[in-house]
Amino acid sequence: MAVNLQPPRREDLLPVAGVELGWAEAGIRKPGRKDLLVIRLASTAVVAGVFTRNRFAAAPVLVCREHLDDGGPIRALVVNTGNANAGTGAAGLADARATCEAVGRLLGVAPQAVLPFSTGVIMEPLPVDRLVAGLPQAVSSLAAGHWLEAAEAIMTTDTLPKAVSRRVTIAGREVTITGIAKGAGMIRPNMATMLGFVAMDAAVPRDILQSMTLHAADRSFNRITVDGDTSTNDSFVIMASGAGDLQVVKRTDASFAPLQEALTDVARTLAQAIVRDGEGATKFIEVRVDEAHSVGEAAQVAYAVAHSPLVKTAFFASDPNLGRILAAVGNAGVADLDPARVQLRLDDVWVVRDGGRHPEYREADGQRVMKQSEILVHLQLGRGNESTSVWTTDFSHDYVSINADYRS
Amino acid sequence: MAVNLQPPRREDLLPVAGVELGWAEAGIRKPGRKDLLVIRLASTAVVAGVFTRNRFAAAPVLVCREHLDDGGPIRALVVNTGNANAGTGAAGLADARATCEAVGRLLGVAPQAVLPFSTGVIMEPLPVDRLVAGLPQAVSSLAAGHWLEAAEAIMTTDTLPKAVSRRVTIAGREVTITGIAKGAGMIRPNMATMLGFVAMDAAVPRDILQSMTLHAADRSFNRITVDGDTSTNDSFVIMASGAGDLQVVKRTDASFAPLQEALTDVARTLAQAIVRDGEGATKFIEVRVDEAHSVGEAAQVAYAVAHSPLVKTAFFASDPNLGRILAAVGNAGVADLDPARVQLRLDDVWVVRDGGRHPEYREADGQRVMKQSEILVHLQLGRGNESTSVWTTDFSHDYVSINADYRS
Repeated sequence: MAVNLQPPRREDLLPVAGVELGWAEAGIRKPGRKDLLVIRLASTAVVAGVFTRNRFAAAPVLVCREHLDDGGPIRALVVNTGNANAGTGAAGLADARATCEAVGRLLGVAPQAVLPFSTGVIMEPLPVDRLVAGLPQAVSSLAAGHWLEAAEAIMTTDTLPKAVSRRVTIAGREVTITGIAKGAGMIRPNMATMLGFVAMDAAVPRDILQSMTLHAADRSFNRITVDGDTSTNDSFVIMASGAGDLQVVKRTDASFAPLQEALTDVARTLAQAIVRDGEGATKFIEVRVDEAHSVGEAAQVAYAVAHSPLVKTAFFASDPNLGRILAAVGNAGVADLDPARVQLRLDDVWVVRDGGRHPEYREADGQRVMKQSEILVHLQLGRGNESTSVWTTDFSHDYVSINADYRS
Repeated sequence: MAVNLQPPRREDLLPVAGVELGWAEAGIRKPGRKDLLVIRLASTAVVAGVFTRNRFAAAPVLVCREHLDDGGPIRALVVNTGNANAGTGAAGLADARATCEAVGRLLGVAPQAVLPFSTGVIMEPLPVDRLVAGLPQAVSSLAAGHWLEAAEAIMTTDTLPKAVSRRVTIAGREVTITGIAKGAGMIRPNMATMLGFVAMDAAVPRDILQSMTLHAADRSFNRITVDGDTSTNDSFVIMASGAGDLQVVKRTDASFAPLQEALTDVARTLAQAIVRDGEGATKFIEVRVDEAHSVGEAAQVAYAVAHSPLVKTAFFASDPNLGRILAAVGNAGVADLDPARVQLRLDDVWVVRDGGRHPEYREADGQRVMKQSEILVHLQLGRGNESTSVWTTDFSHDYVSINADYRS
């Protein structure tokens, strides 16, 4: 079902020096599938992360924030699927801490050096015994070449693993970046998505890495939506192992901007992969808003279009019922929007001129674009010079089926 | 498909003195169905209305506002289905005015005394010639006993006509109230829904009638949602014909509050009928939020739950995957919400205590409630003393089918 998304090929996924990955079949929710991942980092590694703004943030998210705020070295990540450990109160927090302690014992590092992540059903107790029992298997398989298995180990309703690598030369030095992500539903990240992990071998100080992470998130995971539901577990982490050739010391370094752009490119590719694999998706849609008063306003309008069930079902049906897009724009909460300044194009087809149907618009032209698997919805608001894009999917019968049957 | 909604019986719909209704089959979109309604009001009538806040408000909405602001008497309403006359620019505005002129000529009243309403597909030119050609038939059938036909004439994707009557005695005088409404999709009214018309025979000054209309809308049409999409054409109108026994002169009259409550009751019944007939609905769900800081905050949280596709598909599946409700609450934008103070009940079943799963909650109990056709989702936020309720539906395969096929 995924839209123009290929499974990653093992040979395309580059090991990152200083980063090892191991997995297990711990039977967290169901037996016989990879559901536990451990990532071990070199002692030189620096880690930064952004997390969900959902007020019901999951226990592992709370523990991640705590361990990162602690300021000490981060030496390992542990990820389970099958259970979100969210809405689980004090017991859930204890389970997340116990997970970090168990990983710490096995790797010989402090519990505070471990970041925990969970994804799956909300409000069910984490089967922490089964998780801990699976850890030795995960640790015994740690190796730098296991990115594909790692991508598989974090899948839930994803139909394909999501992973990408880039090798770039910056300031004459080679940097290797590899990232994985999971997610297909409950996707409208607010800070980051559940779950994205990107590693590189460059050395970057913590504060600079954190700002690079925010920069990348705001242009990737914070610009996608499948169903408008922000998860309790969204987490996006960048790991700089420091085991490679490139070292960034300060923001004014010539290498800062190119490295930030390379990381953003990897994050955007992963974020778009999540949309392409969105639950029930048959179309990949970019909603681009230009001439907004601010980037925030552009995003607000783009999300109003991207979240409208009526717009999404029209895309599913390839029906150029494009008045629904205008209704969504009018509904976006921009109080002083002047409809008479709004332009709408579908790819190259000019549909709405100055707030009304373009006199030369023909439904056959709209129909042609609507039938494509990738569509650009291009809006101009006539209010300013700011722009943004949001990537989303259509809304199909399969979305309903997948989410009506998720737990069964 | 409608949830516990019966078609209105002709004998239950009471004529309102001073109000006549006539219809036609004008072939606006398709031939052979009622698609045009004219309501004629006595010269004593007073009319108030509330309209969509969508910035792409339809041409008839703009003309309604203009004619009401004008302050002169309103003597007729004209309603077409099959075409929303929205996103139609200057031509659409001219068409709406031409419609009022044609009605005015036939009834011998000024064009400014006519309020126009449209519902149907957005961004297609109104076939004003067919509409005007159908008016003589509608006018020739004007009669006080035609409320059922009027309810039928304003239907689009509705599966059943929606109409209700009440006869109440206030301050020793009898008042008759009859209302009709339409709507099944693009339902998240913001001020009022497309379309609600309520008439009564009491006499009420314009300013008091306007505040009664706002009061009723805020407790009825402004508290329902099917898909979160605010229409371009939402309109809710109350007509006070003044042909009956009761006269309200000022807000301090003993009759003011009971009459306002009777109107609100009629509006709420019609609004809930729209939800029960929501596109693809299999369940009727009340989301009640107590202990909020403000009514606005309560509504914000209730809508976040009522709009979540994941919550709605879980209800469709009768799957007590209730963590999705917590995720929606955490996602409602209440920045300082303390999860540890949140309680969640499903009807009488206590699911979440102090932000986590209640230790005595059993999934079988949640399952029992989820299987019902009517469900109360009851949240307490532990932040204050304000409450509100929002009524909504589940999200089914049929919603997708209906909206993917709407125009075909």
